[in-house]
Amino acid sequence: MNNQIAYITRREHFNAAHRLFKADFSDEKNLEVFGKCSNPNWHGHNYTLFVTIKGTVDAETGFVMNLKELSRIIRTEVIDKLDHKNINVEVDFMQGKLASTENLAISIWEVLVDSLKPFSTVLLHCIKVQETENNFVEYYG
Amino acid sequence: MNNQIAYITRREHFNAAHRLFKADFSDEKNLEVFGKCSNPNWHGHNYTLFVTIKGTVDAETGFVMNLKELSRIIRTEVIDKLDHKNINVEVDFMQGKLASTENLAISIWEVLVDSLKPFSTVLLHCIKVQETENNFVEYYG
Amino acid sequence: MNNQIAYITRREHFNAAHRLFKADFSDEKNLEVFGKCSNPNWHGHNYTLFVTIKGTVDAETGFVMNLKELSRIIRTEVIDKLDHKNINVEVDFMQGKLASTENLAISIWEVLVDSLKPFSTVLLHCIKVQETENNFVEYYG
Amino acid sequence: MNNQIAYITRREHFNAAHRLFKADFSDEKNLEVFGKCSNPNWHGHNYTLFVTIKGTVDAETGFVMNLKELSRIIRTEVIDKLDHKNINVEVDFMQGKLASTENLAISIWEVLVDSLKPFSTVLLHCIKVQETENNFVEYYG
Amino acid sequence: MNNQIAYITRREHFNAAHRLFKADFSDEKNLEVFGKCSNPNWHGHNYTLFVTIKGTVDAETGFVMNLKELSRIIRTEVIDKLDHKNINVEVDFMQGKLASTENLAISIWEVLVDSLKPFSTVLLHCIKVQETENNFVEYYG
Amino acid sequence: MNNQIAYITRREHFNAAHRLFKADFSDEKNLEVFGKCSNPNWHGHNYTLFVTIKGTVDAETGFVMNLKELSRIIRTEVIDKLDHKNINVEVDFMQGKLASTENLAISIWEVLVDSLKPFSTVLLHCIKVQETENNFVEYYG
Repeated sequence: MNNQIAYITRREHFNAAHRLFKADFSDEKNLEVFGKCSNPNWHGHNYTLFVTIKGTVDAETGFVMNLKELSRIIRTEVIDKLDHKNINVEVDFMQGKLASTENLAISIWEVLVDSLKPFSTVLLHCIKVQETENNFVEYYG
Repeated sequence: MNNQIAYITRREHFNAAHRLFKADFSDEKNLEVFGKCSNPNWHGHNYTLFVTIKGTVDAETGFVMNLKELSRIIRTEVIDKLDHKNINVEVDFMQGKLASTENLAISIWEVLVDSLKPFSTVLLHCIKVQETENNFVEYYG
Repeated sequence: MNNQIAYITRREHFNAAHRLFKADFSDEKNLEVFGKCSNPNWHGHNYTLFVTIKGTVDAETGFVMNLKELSRIIRTEVIDKLDHKNINVEVDFMQGKLASTENLAISIWEVLVDSLKPFSTVLLHCIKVQETENNFVEYYG
Repeated sequence: MNNQIAYITRREHFNAAHRLFKADFSDEKNLEVFGKCSNPNWHGHNYTLFVTIKGTVDAETGFVMNLKELSRIIRTEVIDKLDHKNINVEVDFMQGKLASTENLAISIWEVLVDSLKPFSTVLLHCIKVQETENNFVEYYG
Repeated sequence: MNNQIAYITRREHFNAAHRLFKADFSDEKNLEVFGKCSNPNWHGHNYTLFVTIKGTVDAETGFVMNLKELSRIIRTEVIDKLDHKNINVEVDFMQGKLASTENLAISIWEVLVDSLKPFSTVLLHCIKVQETENNFVEYYG
Repeated sequence: MNNQIAYITRREHFNAAHRLFKADFSDEKNLEVFGKCSNPNWHGHNYTLFVTIKGTVDAETGFVMNLKELSRIIRTEVIDKLDHKNINVEVDFMQGKLASTENLAISIWEVLVDSLKPFSTVLLHCIKVQETENNFVEYYG
């Protein structure tokens, strides 16, 4: 059972406020493009984050990676910065970006790719961000 | 099959921003009482609302109440006012109230009890508001 | 731990076709009252059934009632008659009734109240029938 | 954040009746091959549809594609034709085909590939059709 | 908005091993009564616990009870004793009892009724323990 | 509609006990590496298994593979050996292996690849094992 590649996924949650808008659009244009998501008084979501990593199964532990360690990294680097926060205003890795689910997924990827570099036996495979029951984004780097 | 009482429940959703705080508390006191929910920059949730009504089953239709009609009332009177809104700032029936799940449930009850008055054969039975997978409030009037 | 009353619930599924209509209504009247649910060519659902019974916890077994026995009764008396069937056409206990979720719940109650009579230590407490993610009916007898 | 490929998925629902059978099989043969799914009186399901599209994230909007637009297309071209309908009898794009989940997924793909042609920046990636909690089909073209 | 009674529910999880058997039954009798649940080598579940409390909504906080406080009590008094444990062997409040879901619910009630005594404004209302997707027990004291 | 490749997935469940540990580690070392999962008295989970197979859609049946047949094989070869069992002690295909979710997924793959050999038109594509709501493993061979 050596050298077998498996994928493990950890689910985490964050509840945050956001608004979709461009500063150089008029209010009318923002409403036209982003609909009710452009509300200047904000709205919010219970976001669900799925982090998938890929690697060989360690013969000593039976793990691709220790999930406690993975969960600790995701919480420290991502969840603590997003949970009960305003994505547009307070989240360092989202500054200067439209607060869309697509950009959230890509930015979380960029944060975690760096954080996982010390773990030479695994690769980040997918970031999935679910905004509501009806829509989610996947990013594979 | 006459005069039999049944309960029907309709589920609806709204995504909104809110903040838990009291204007006459200091920031430190708000943080102590409400934790990260007191973030002055707001956060938000995908709220799920369950409206349960009680009544006899109509022999003509087999319904306690037509769910299309019930759904229309909930959307017009409650969802349209809450969805993609800031609960503290923009929702008429939450003005002057702490934006807790308990107060949301009670206020939605008060709105719907009025809206359902024309439907003399049914009674509002329960308002359930789910804020996250891990907590919800039920109010029975 | 004697004489303590608890409630146990068993979930089962059935997938069935149905149509909401009255034979003495015109097609137009049926469409007006029942909407797209009156489609003469049928439509269908994955129904979920929750059967709750109430009783004292048996000191010998720790059970209100053996769930294997309860499940066997529900399957024999209810699920086998509804699953992959047309509710209007083929289900004996729904003949002559409007195939609404309300009437389904009441009729399943009537079937199971009889079937549970030999079990003198328990009482049927609630039949809950969920038609979609967004609506369900509860009947307490 | 240019030229990054992401995948967005939209979930929709439809409730429909169907029957699995071949006209040139005897009733016994249909029962043998398709089991209770061959019931001549029909049965039905709450189907869940997941449509995944792939594209670069637009710098102006932060979107791969506007979900309101995607949802509008899915509803007009697919859901309105399937919801509260009989798949075997009434759905134009299923005529002459066995009403299996596999064929549903392939046929919905064919409809949406055409409908999405005007959107030159995105590609249809996957159609997933879930028939019950216990089975689903994915088709990638 | 004073003196209004609402119900709040907190969901928690524990993953545990157990076995249903009576020491004074033969193996055959245990198998007959408890089926595969009597396996002497144990089996286990992801249990979900719902704790519902009832009380007036505090005018100062908008809460029936602070959920952080409720969650802390449930974790300290219940979850820490059950999670990743063997219910028959290691859980103090289950010693000498059959490890059925009914007895789990009643025993958790007894623990929490005591722990909640210092909170004079609330009452424990319901303990719900879900063992699998298909069955759960509710106990109301 | 010939030669079109689709993927079908069947979901099954098993409830089992397990323990993560290495016999040649001290108790302290096992606790350090595996945390509370190393409890010598066992703990357990409701595992969910998703089996995905890939193949062309049969023109005669509209199926990639008959789901009744696939479900029968999964139950006989996998579920009956795992359900209500102790994975470390009683499951033939897990002997001598760490009872991690990764090793479970790989071992189930190896069992099913063999069992599906007689079905020359399909290939096993993915084994997904979900241990809790928050983590799962996927293995593609």
